[in-house]
Amino acid sequence: MAKPLAVSPLAVPFPAMGQIGGVRLATVAAGIRYQGRTDLVLMDFVAGTSVAGVFTRNTCPGAPIDWCREALAGGTARGLVVNAGNANVFTGRAGRETTHATAAAAASLLGCGQSEIFLASTGVIGEVLPHERITRALPALATGLTPTGWEAAARGIMTTDTFPKGAIRTVTIAGTPVTIQGIAKGSGMIAPDMATMLCFVATDAALPQAVLQTLLAASVDRSFNCTTVDSDTSTSDTVLLFATGTAGNPPVAGNADPALADFAEALDSLLLELALLVVRDGEGATKLVRIEVSGAVSDQSARQVALAVANSPLVKTAIAGEDANWGRIVMAVGKSGEPADRDTLSIGVGGTWMAREGTVVPGYDEAPVVAHMKGSELDIAIDLGLGQGAGRAWTCDLTHGYIDINGSYRS
Amino acid sequence: MAKPLAVSPLAVPFPAMGQIGGVRLATVAAGIRYQGRTDLVLMDFVAGTSVAGVFTRNTCPGAPIDWCREALAGGTARGLVVNAGNANVFTGRAGRETTHATAAAAASLLGCGQSEIFLASTGVIGEVLPHERITRALPALATGLTPTGWEAAARGIMTTDTFPKGAIRTVTIAGTPVTIQGIAKGSGMIAPDMATMLCFVATDAALPQAVLQTLLAASVDRSFNCTTVDSDTSTSDTVLLFATGTAGNPPVAGNADPALADFAEALDSLLLELALLVVRDGEGATKLVRIEVSGAVSDQSARQVALAVANSPLVKTAIAGEDANWGRIVMAVGKSGEPADRDTLSIGVGGTWMAREGTVVPGYDEAPVVAHMKGSELDIAIDLGLGQGAGRAWTCDLTHGYIDINGSYRS
Repeated sequence: MAKPLAVSPLAVPFPAMGQIGGVRLATVAAGIRYQGRTDLVLMDFVAGTSVAGVFTRNTCPGAPIDWCREALAGGTARGLVVNAGNANVFTGRAGRETTHATAAAAASLLGCGQSEIFLASTGVIGEVLPHERITRALPALATGLTPTGWEAAARGIMTTDTFPKGAIRTVTIAGTPVTIQGIAKGSGMIAPDMATMLCFVATDAALPQAVLQTLLAASVDRSFNCTTVDSDTSTSDTVLLFATGTAGNPPVAGNADPALADFAEALDSLLLELALLVVRDGEGATKLVRIEVSGAVSDQSARQVALAVANSPLVKTAIAGEDANWGRIVMAVGKSGEPADRDTLSIGVGGTWMAREGTVVPGYDEAPVVAHMKGSELDIAIDLGLGQGAGRAWTCDLTHGYIDINGSYRS
Repeated sequence: MAKPLAVSPLAVPFPAMGQIGGVRLATVAAGIRYQGRTDLVLMDFVAGTSVAGVFTRNTCPGAPIDWCREALAGGTARGLVVNAGNANVFTGRAGRETTHATAAAAASLLGCGQSEIFLASTGVIGEVLPHERITRALPALATGLTPTGWEAAARGIMTTDTFPKGAIRTVTIAGTPVTIQGIAKGSGMIAPDMATMLCFVATDAALPQAVLQTLLAASVDRSFNCTTVDSDTSTSDTVLLFATGTAGNPPVAGNADPALADFAEALDSLLLELALLVVRDGEGATKLVRIEVSGAVSDQSARQVALAVANSPLVKTAIAGEDANWGRIVMAVGKSGEPADRDTLSIGVGGTWMAREGTVVPGYDEAPVVAHMKGSELDIAIDLGLGQGAGRAWTCDLTHGYIDINGSYRS
């Protein structure tokens, strides 16, 4: 392994996490790939826990993704096993054997069906993940489960993340207090091999699986699906949401139930916080960038434009250089392929419009823009001047740190 | 301006270019942006020259692109004016005034209609290009036109290119010898601002505009459209092909005429040579990479997969690190969105298959692959195992040089 990475300058402290009724966690150093650190996490959920999941769109997913997609059809969860250091991707039949053996061992220990066990792996691709390293560590994990194990779990799933990531929300459903809390890992797709975004969220709310799945899919679409570090899509991206029901809130009558409004908003906000923690830990990142697009022909079109700007190496290197190079933003808007008209296009940075309706603003004063570019959190505004569609994306800058991290040999 | 860039380690010498009947060129230092170097080129074509053009797909193109698209409708060309240092992009009405004034001045000097004048500009975006700097230099250019001015022209259109780019082919059409030769510039989209790919090719063949346009579009599709440096699409990309007819070949009966076969093949080959010269001059490039995809459901699908791999920052940084990281190639195949099946996927480097049918090749010996990765020209092979579709793409690696070049301030 390469030498430890310096903590991202955009890191934020881990929050003081409490417990979620019906959830226990345990973390151990199983020696799967890393030495001298934890790398295996077991989560245990009370009987009756419903589960929702959203997975990578990569068409070459890892074996654990296949497993979870099948298990999700059952709708309930009793356990989650996550390892760091080996992604169990492109491992053929051996990969499938590892997922089956891991799920069988966990189900036996937790006294449930195998289809109630969820799996996630992150780390190197294309190396067989020997299931014995997991299964032999599971019994001790099962005896060490504790409701206070959240921060340890957040650390145990890290690969080349430079800080652990967690977030909490408390709201009410029909007057009953409920808590949502989650952990995430990811910093783009990191050397020495591919990394991945993993996110595990639990709530004590009582919510049926169908409601949970609809909520999660919508929230992921507004959070993780609006962020990018380097445009590369992991084979292992996984977001799972578990609802234990121990809060005892009254039943909800589907996703349109007004009693769910606060919960839905809190889930949105929590997932966005976790997604932005991942961007803050983007490889080599020194700046967190928000790109707001308005005036598009549709919301979907606005987001595509925002992502094209967020993924442009030339925009990202200009941001790293603190250069308010709006010419590159024009280029990225135009390369998105979405409807855009040069002559109605306006571009602003940090609240200052630099270009309006296809040309530089008369008397444009670069000073406030230059000052904004020197900060660690940047806002870029793009008004396409075509319609009412709006959307946003978040990214980080592209620096020498990215090349250092990703251009080194595996070892 | 930043200090001069070191010549790309992948540079090749400029060829000994002869003349093309009916073509004269002149180059001058007009002081448009650069100091102490040439930056303005005039090309003059004999009456009756037909012209074909292919332009950027960026939806926010520069004013010269708009001009050329209109002029192309006329089908004939008498002059071409190209400047380096200012792209005349996102300059609103002032940009249009500059194209009109430039074309009017050139038409007057060459004694032709304005619609027979073609224009291209490359350099900084969003700054007004004062047409006086061009128009006042044109008279001296017109008096200095010479058939031997090709290399000077290739140098005069450079922005942060580190070497001039040219290529030549000679073939016959129905027994008549004809020559094709062209120049190009580009090295991705370069600091201090956006660069661009420009390519100007002339032949003494007699070919009607419709035939020429069909030939050019097909050739560009197989060459420039298969190359990428950083996935960013310039607002100014332009390929123009001029046919003067001075070779006096017999008329051809449309694109299906067998007499055209050799010419078409030579044009393909010439444009690919020029396109690869641009990749060889990609910002920070130290390796030229060819990605061959086979077994896709269609040729189009194969090319999309090849381009997804070619554009992946993680693949490109791994190549820079001489790391045969096929896990990242799997990821990039999967992120392309094209039909792909992990379990029929094979990946090879330098003629050695590393992974076959979804997993590492038994007894895979990394030694020949590691040796190949250390070279300056790399081959990656991807067999999707699904169908008969084949395609390819070329790119360069992503190095600290790219960040150096693109992350610096404009000045």
